[in-house]
Amino acid sequence: MASEFTATRRIAFSETDSAGIVHFANYPKFAEDVEHAFFRSVGLSIATELADGTRVGWPRVRSSWNYLSPLRFEEECELRLVVRKLGDKSITYAIEIRRLSGDQPTLCARGTTVAVCVQGVEGGHMRSVPIPALVRDRIEQAPAERLKDWPKD
Amino acid sequence: MASEFTATRRIAFSETDSAGIVHFANYPKFAEDVEHAFFRSVGLSIATELADGTRVGWPRVRSSWNYLSPLRFEEECELRLVVRKLGDKSITYAIEIRRLSGDQPTLCARGTTVAVCVQGVEGGHMRSVPIPALVRDRIEQAPAERLKDWPKD
Amino acid sequence: MASEFTATRRIAFSETDSAGIVHFANYPKFAEDVEHAFFRSVGLSIATELADGTRVGWPRVRSSWNYLSPLRFEEECELRLVVRKLGDKSITYAIEIRRLSGDQPTLCARGTTVAVCVQGVEGGHMRSVPIPALVRDRIEQAPAERLKDWPKD
Amino acid sequence: MASEFTATRRIAFSETDSAGIVHFANYPKFAEDVEHAFFRSVGLSIATELADGTRVGWPRVRSSWNYLSPLRFEEECELRLVVRKLGDKSITYAIEIRRLSGDQPTLCARGTTVAVCVQGVEGGHMRSVPIPALVRDRIEQAPAERLKDWPKD
Repeated sequence: MASEFTATRRIAFSETDSAGIVHFANYPKFAEDVEHAFFRSVGLSIATELADGTRVGWPRVRSSWNYLSPLRFEEECELRLVVRKLGDKSITYAIEIRRLSGDQPTLCARGTTVAVCVQGVEGGHMRSVPIPALVRDRIEQAPAERLKDWPKD
Repeated sequence: MASEFTATRRIAFSETDSAGIVHFANYPKFAEDVEHAFFRSVGLSIATELADGTRVGWPRVRSSWNYLSPLRFEEECELRLVVRKLGDKSITYAIEIRRLSGDQPTLCARGTTVAVCVQGVEGGHMRSVPIPALVRDRIEQAPAERLKDWPKD
Repeated sequence: MASEFTATRRIAFSETDSAGIVHFANYPKFAEDVEHAFFRSVGLSIATELADGTRVGWPRVRSSWNYLSPLRFEEECELRLVVRKLGDKSITYAIEIRRLSGDQPTLCARGTTVAVCVQGVEGGHMRSVPIPALVRDRIEQAPAERLKDWPKD
Repeated sequence: MASEFTATRRIAFSETDSAGIVHFANYPKFAEDVEHAFFRSVGLSIATELADGTRVGWPRVRSSWNYLSPLRFEEECELRLVVRKLGDKSITYAIEIRRLSGDQPTLCARGTTVAVCVQGVEGGHMRSVPIPALVRDRIEQAPAERLKDWPKD
C-alpha cells in the first residue's frame, strides 16, 4: 500500500535565513502542511472530531531529514508525500521536495515523519490509541501506486 | 504609573532572513517574550490559574512597530518594556529594542502592544474581562519609574 | 491611485499557538507574502536585479496591526493589499485579512506596512534610494480602484 | 573525542502550537542555537571570517529527531550537545533535550545534526571544503568526556 499526494508551494521570504537559503527547520513544516493537505484530500482533517465525539491528534515521534540542495526565495517546489507504513497506532510518511524552478526538477530534500495517533487524557497528557477505522479506510482508499524506486531511509 | 522591565537576548540564526538582517516579524515575538518575563518577574505567569480556578489569557488587539536600524545574527540586544497604561481590561506596553554590540547602544526598534484580558467561553470563543485584582496588584507594585521622556507612539 | 491585490491562504498548524489561535506575529508574514505576490502579479520580484545591474531591497520601517477576530487552524482567509501611498522612496500598504470559512467573510485583522526602497552599500549597510522607474510604473499601472471606504489607520 | 556543551532555555509562547505543546519544528532551531553557543564558548563564531579573509558556512545535510515527551510553554529545558564525529569536512552533533521543570529531568527529544563546512562560490553556490585548522583545533580542545552511554541513533 502506498497512498500518495503531491502539492506545490513557493518559498516565502520569511522562510529564508542570512545564508540566503531556506532555513532547514522549515522543511518539517512544509512536510506537515502537505500531510494536512493529504488528509483534506481524502475528506479528513487532522483536527476532525470523530462520530463518537472523540478527537484524536497526531504528534510526531520522529522527523528525519536529508538536505541535498538548498532552496531560495520565490523558488517553486513540489512536495510529494507517500504513506510508507500504516501501522496500528502510527503513520510513517516519506516526503520528497523538488525544486521546480530551473531547467528540470531537482531533488532538494528527503524526509521521513512518524506521526502517532493519540487522545488527550486528564492532566493534558496524551495516550497513543489505534487509528480510527474512518481514518484508516480513507487513507487506504487514497490513490495508491507501488513505488518500486522509493529509496530506503 | 510606569512599571518597567528589561531583558537581553542574542539574535539567533533562524531569526535572520536572506537580506542578512533579523526578519521584522520576529520583533513582536521578542516583545511577547519580554512581556512574559515581566509577568514572571512579579510572580505571575501569563498562563497561571487564578485562586478561584478561572484562567485568563492575553491576546493582542494591537501591535505596532517602527524599525530604525536592523539587527544581525549573534548581536546582543536589550529589550526594555514599560507598562504605559493599565486599563480595566487591557494593558498597553511600550517596548524599545537596543543593540548592545558595538560602541554604544543603538535604538533599533520601538513597539507598542495592547493585550486584552480574556476568558474562554463555550465554543472556543473569548470574552474580555476585567484584569484580576491579583494581576493588577502585582503589576502596580512592579518597580516604577516616571518616564518623562517616553516618546508618543 | 490605489493599486489593489487579493490572495487567499489556509492557516497552517505551525502558525497556531497554544491559545488555539494564529500567533499574532504571523500576520506581518502573511502581509509580506501578499506584497511579494503583488509584485509578481505586475511582473516584478522583490529581489529582481534592475536593467543597470543594481539591486534594491524593501525593508520595513513600520508595521502596525489591529487584531479583531482570531483565526484558527485550517481556516481559509482572504488577504487584500492596497497601495495607499507611493512615495519617492517608500510604499505604504494597507492589508485587510478576512476569514472565508463560515457563513460570511469576517474582518480578522487590519495592518499597515511601510517599506522603504534601499540599496546595499559597503559594510553591509543600506541606504534609501528613489524607487526605480520600472517598479514605479508597474505599480502605477496595476489594477486601480478608488477605495472611498478604506478606513484611516 | 567528544566535546560537550550544555545550555538551558525556557519555552516561548510563540514556540507552542494549538495542541498545547512545542511545535516539533522548533527543536532543530533549539539545536542550532546551542551549536552556535558551543562555537562561541570556544572563541569561534559560525559566521567568523578566517585569518586569510575567507569565510565558511555550515549548512546542514542531515537533521534527525526522535520526540519522546512534549515540552510546554514556560518549561525550562536543558540542551546537551556532543560532537560525535569531527570529519574532514563535516561535524556530526548529537543533542539531547531534557525538561528541567518538574521533579526530575525528563528526556524529551534526541537529535542528530550533520553540518558541512562550505565556502560560497560564484553564482551563489556552495562547495564543501576541509574544516579550517583553527576551527578544528578549537573544537578538539573543547572540554571532552568519553560518553560510554551515548545511544546509537
